[in-house]
Amino acid sequence: MNPANPSPVSAVRPAVDAALAEFMEHRRKLMAEIGPELVPVMDALDHMLAGGKRLRPAFCYWGWRGAGGAEIPEIGTAAAALEFLQACALIHDDVIDNSDTRRGRPATHRRLAALHERSGWDGDPAAFGRGAAVLIGDLCLAWCEEMYSASGLGEAALRAGRGPFDMMRTEVMAGQYLDMIEQERGGETVEAALRVMHYKSAKYTVERPLHLGAALAGRHDELAPVFTAYGVPLGVAFQLRDDVLGVFGDPAQTGKPAGDDLREGKRTLVVAETLSRARSGDADRFRTLLGDPALSAESVDWMRALITASGGLAACEQRIDDYTARASAALDTDAIAPEARAALADLIVAATARER
Amino acid sequence: MNPANPSPVSAVRPAVDAALAEFMEHRRKLMAEIGPELVPVMDALDHMLAGGKRLRPAFCYWGWRGAGGAEIPEIGTAAAALEFLQACALIHDDVIDNSDTRRGRPATHRRLAALHERSGWDGDPAAFGRGAAVLIGDLCLAWCEEMYSASGLGEAALRAGRGPFDMMRTEVMAGQYLDMIEQERGGETVEAALRVMHYKSAKYTVERPLHLGAALAGRHDELAPVFTAYGVPLGVAFQLRDDVLGVFGDPAQTGKPAGDDLREGKRTLVVAETLSRARSGDADRFRTLLGDPALSAESVDWMRALITASGGLAACEQRIDDYTARASAALDTDAIAPEARAALADLIVAATARER
Repeated sequence: MNPANPSPVSAVRPAVDAALAEFMEHRRKLMAEIGPELVPVMDALDHMLAGGKRLRPAFCYWGWRGAGGAEIPEIGTAAAALEFLQACALIHDDVIDNSDTRRGRPATHRRLAALHERSGWDGDPAAFGRGAAVLIGDLCLAWCEEMYSASGLGEAALRAGRGPFDMMRTEVMAGQYLDMIEQERGGETVEAALRVMHYKSAKYTVERPLHLGAALAGRHDELAPVFTAYGVPLGVAFQLRDDVLGVFGDPAQTGKPAGDDLREGKRTLVVAETLSRARSGDADRFRTLLGDPALSAESVDWMRALITASGGLAACEQRIDDYTARASAALDTDAIAPEARAALADLIVAATARER
Repeated sequence: MNPANPSPVSAVRPAVDAALAEFMEHRRKLMAEIGPELVPVMDALDHMLAGGKRLRPAFCYWGWRGAGGAEIPEIGTAAAALEFLQACALIHDDVIDNSDTRRGRPATHRRLAALHERSGWDGDPAAFGRGAAVLIGDLCLAWCEEMYSASGLGEAALRAGRGPFDMMRTEVMAGQYLDMIEQERGGETVEAALRVMHYKSAKYTVERPLHLGAALAGRHDELAPVFTAYGVPLGVAFQLRDDVLGVFGDPAQTGKPAGDDLREGKRTLVVAETLSRARSGDADRFRTLLGDPALSAESVDWMRALITASGGLAACEQRIDDYTARASAALDTDAIAPEARAALADLIVAATARER
C-alpha cells in the first residue's frame, strides 16, 4: 500500500472497534449476571476480537460507500457484526484442525484448556477446551446476527442486506466442509483447490461483504455484478497469498510455526500447483510428508525447495498477479463512487501484500 | 395428557413440519449447487430435524395464541425456526459429550464419521465426524435466524421478537457452558444443578419460546411475567423428568442406553439430591462410579438403588409435582386467551409425562 494514503481499513476501524467494544461491554454484564464462570469466556472473546484485521468490515463499508452510502456510524456497526462471524469461523476452525495457535497466541480451545488445568478440575482439559470453544463460537455466530439486527440501520436496509448476509454464512460453512473433505480424501487438483477458495475465501471475505454493503445502501442488484467481478478474483488472490505465506511466511508475521500448513496437510493451490508439476518420485515423497504432524525442519525445507523448483510457487505468484489485475480492471467503472474506487484499489494491495 | 383432547403439540406440528420441509428443500438445492459432497450434510440434517418433538415451537405458538395472535401460517414458520436452534444445540452437545447416539440412532458426528469410513478417506474418521458436526451445527444456527427473519411476519413483529430470540440463544449456550463446568469440577449442590437447569432448560425450552410468541403478537411486556411464572417452573420440571428418565428410563423410549447419564457423569439434580442424602460411604462410592465410561450394568443397578433408597428420587418426584403445581397455578389468569390456557395446561402434562 502507498504509505502516503490513509489505509482503506483504517477508515472504518475506529467505528468497528467502538461498536464491538460497546456490544461486548453489554454482553459482559449480561454474562456475568448469568454466572461469574462466564468471565473467562468473555476474556477469550475479547482477545479473539482484538486480533482481527477488520478486512470483511472494510469491504462491507466500502461496498456501502461505493453504492453512495453516507459516512454514518450505523454502517460501522453492521460491518462490525462480520467480525463475530469471522471469530466463530476461526474458533471452530481451530477446533476442527486441532491448531494450537492463532495469530501467535494460544487458540481459543487451548486458552480454555489452560483454564481447566489452572482450576485443577477433573476430566480432560483438552476435551473441555474443545467443547467450550464450540460453545464460544456458537455465541459469536448468534451475536453476529444480533449485532447486525441492532445496528440501527433501517428495517428496509436490513431486510435488503439479508440476502448476502445469509448467503455469506451458508457459503463459508459449506466451503469449510468442502475444505475438510478435500483434506481427507487427499484432493490435489487445481480445480478442487479453486472451488474451496471460491466459497471459503473469495465469496466470504470479499464478494459477499461488498454485496452486503451495496444491499444495505439499497443498490445490490445494480452493483452486485461489479463487486463480483472485483471481489471473486481478489478473494482468490488474498487466499493464495495466505497459502504462500502459510508455507514460506515468517512465523513472527504469520503467527504460525514455519511450514505449519504443510504439517497440517492443507490441500491448498500451492500444493496442487506443485504436485501437478513435480516429477513423480518427488511428488510421491511430497505426498508422504504432507500432513505429517511431526514434520521436521529439514523436511519442511525440502518441501519448500520442491514447491519453488517445480515452478509451483511461480505459478501461484503468477495467479496472484493475474487475479489482482482482474480485480483492478473491474474497478474501471463509474458505477462505484470515486472515493470508494480508490479505497478498493488500495484494498487490493493490502489484501495481497507479501508481508502481513 | 387427556387422550380425549387433541395434543397441544399436534396443533402446531403440521405447520412446523411443512415450514421446515420447504426451507430444507430450498437449502438442499443451494447446497447441491455448491457441491454434491454436501448432500450427506443435508441428509444428516433431515434426520435430525425429523426426530424433534416440536416442544419449543409449540410453546412459541401457544405464547402467540395466548397473546391473541391469529392462527396464521407465518407463526408456524417463525416457531419452526426454533427447531434449527435445537438441532444446533443437540448436534454440538453430542460432539461435546462425545455421545454416540441421539434418539436411538447414531449422533450426527457418528453419521459423518461413518461416511468417512465408507468413503475410505485418509485421516481419522472420528475427527472428521466431529469437525463436520461442528460445521453442520453452525449451519443450523445460521438457518435458525434466516428462517425466523424470512417467516413472513411483519417487520415490527420480528423486531419485537428479537429480544427473547436473542436472549434464548445466549442463555442456552451460557447454560451449556455452566453445565460443562459443573461436570468438570464435580459440582454436586442442588443450587448449582438448579442454576444450570434454569438457563439451559427452563428459560430455553419453555419461558423464552413463550416470550417470543407473546412478543411477536405485540404483547411481550404484558404477558412476560405470566409466562415466566408458568414457564420457569415447568421448564425445571421438564428437565427433572428428563434427568429421572436418563437414569431410570426404558432405553427403547429414551433412545439412550440404560443409565447413560450416570455413565456420562452428568451433574443433574438427581445426583445432587442423592449425594446430599446418602451416607458418606455410599456417597463416596457413588462419586467414584459417576462418569465412569465403562460403568457395568451391576454398578448402574447399585446407583439406581441408592438414588431410590436415599430418598433422592422421591425428592425429585416431589419437586416435579411442586414445580408442575406452580406452573398450573400461574395459568389461573385472564391475561391468557382461554384456548391457549387449555393448551398450556395440556403441555404441562406432555412435558413432564413419565413416558416419552
